[in-house]
Amino acid sequence: MEKLKRNERIAAMMKILGDQPNKIFTLNYFTEKFSAAKSTISEDIMVVKQSMEKMKLGKILTISGAAGGVKYIPFTTENQNKEILEGISQQLSQGERILPGGFLYMTDVIYAPQKLHQLGEVFASQFEYKDINYIITVETKGIPLALMVAKAMNLPLVILRRDSKVTEGSTVSINYVSGSTGQIQKMSLSRRAIKPNSKVIIIDDFMKAGGTAKGMVDMMKEFDTQVEGIGVLIATKEPEEKLVQGYIPLLILEKVKQKEGLIHIYPNEKLV
Amino acid sequence: MEKLKRNERIAAMMKILGDQPNKIFTLNYFTEKFSAAKSTISEDIMVVKQSMEKMKLGKILTISGAAGGVKYIPFTTENQNKEILEGISQQLSQGERILPGGFLYMTDVIYAPQKLHQLGEVFASQFEYKDINYIITVETKGIPLALMVAKAMNLPLVILRRDSKVTEGSTVSINYVSGSTGQIQKMSLSRRAIKPNSKVIIIDDFMKAGGTAKGMVDMMKEFDTQVEGIGVLIATKEPEEKLVQGYIPLLILEKVKQKEGLIHIYPNEKLV
Repeated sequence: MEKLKRNERIAAMMKILGDQPNKIFTLNYFTEKFSAAKSTISEDIMVVKQSMEKMKLGKILTISGAAGGVKYIPFTTENQNKEILEGISQQLSQGERILPGGFLYMTDVIYAPQKLHQLGEVFASQFEYKDINYIITVETKGIPLALMVAKAMNLPLVILRRDSKVTEGSTVSINYVSGSTGQIQKMSLSRRAIKPNSKVIIIDDFMKAGGTAKGMVDMMKEFDTQVEGIGVLIATKEPEEKLVQGYIPLLILEKVKQKEGLIHIYPNEKLV
Repeated sequence: MEKLKRNERIAAMMKILGDQPNKIFTLNYFTEKFSAAKSTISEDIMVVKQSMEKMKLGKILTISGAAGGVKYIPFTTENQNKEILEGISQQLSQGERILPGGFLYMTDVIYAPQKLHQLGEVFASQFEYKDINYIITVETKGIPLALMVAKAMNLPLVILRRDSKVTEGSTVSINYVSGSTGQIQKMSLSRRAIKPNSKVIIIDDFMKAGGTAKGMVDMMKEFDTQVEGIGVLIATKEPEEKLVQGYIPLLILEKVKQKEGLIHIYPNEKLV
């Protein structure tokens, strides 16, 4: 292989680190990849680290010791959160999104991959996830968001299903009560999906009364697993008292006035 | 803002381009971001381009003219495909994955975010997607893969649902016949989800007889929309004749011998 110049190595290194956030790459990985000395690679890493800090594009962490190496950690500032979340609020405020019953059409927004990538980084900046083992969500609309959070944190994603499937092996099913409709619903999860005594973060797209989130918390108990955090893209302002506590919403949906075509949604002020 | 050195600019530029593949960034975007001259930014771009080419990490395309700029295009080589796909084949060949009925437990593999990121790039290298408007999938297990393909191609994701929901507005529903079980199933999609006369690529995790893919093709007809490609992570070898033609599988599942605990799965030889 042709030998790279320093700034070419730096571009390649940034690409590799940025594509797999929170994955540790050893110095050896890079010395071999670039046929370069350890001291050279260490200097390259310092440049990348400086660049990310100055441009506020995240953090580079170097880990010393035998299991050492370097990794990229996504991190968004309050200013960046503000820009991202106000952009989405604006999009979701369009009156034509109001559906019969006062529901909001928002699938186009919550399935937009590069926007979700940013939201994944916003969530990764809000949670302590060093000891977390899985990101948990329930089908369907929260899946894309949860996947991007899982990618930013470098954690496996686990999706709770509404029904048990033959492709899941033996499953655990629970019933839970939807907080807003009062209806009894079911969710199910493969026995194999989670190792007991794990720690998880729950991610979902929407929370009204919190019944679904509560259902996921209950399901985790069946797996002797601790829920360490709950993140939702949108939480409604009312009811203020949800069935779960300590959740982090990115956006607050205060009001949908169907007649006037008015939607009042804004960023969680604690994040911006 | 503190002025960046060339190699610091290059790291930041690579991070920005790599995070949003196939998105065009104008030269102005970078001159403002880095307070640097156009000629300087052009030289930076050349370095990034050289680096990606030499390290085979994708392509940098510069577009001249008024709508011009620069974008990063993911691209995987046959050697890279081989490494990625053989890795997954090996994972999926573990005998303990066999479930009653000869099904394979594979959710842990197809929900692994950073692996899916790579698969997204593999698919992006196999399809012509310049004129494509959407990536289409059907809930549930194909969603994470489809999202990563959509991210690599910078296209919106559209998810077909099994049932119509109040949060989708008016929907189109069709019935289709599962090719393997012969059962009649339903899928539904919001009227708002796709603009008529669009072009789409279908992505799913698994294809046996192709009934679900055929259902998605039929659904697209309801939206006067052309299916330009179909990609699946795994296609079974039998039946060789599927209900859809011209699909691209990444892996071929030839055999599952339940008694012997034997799984025969391997990369599509056309890609490696």
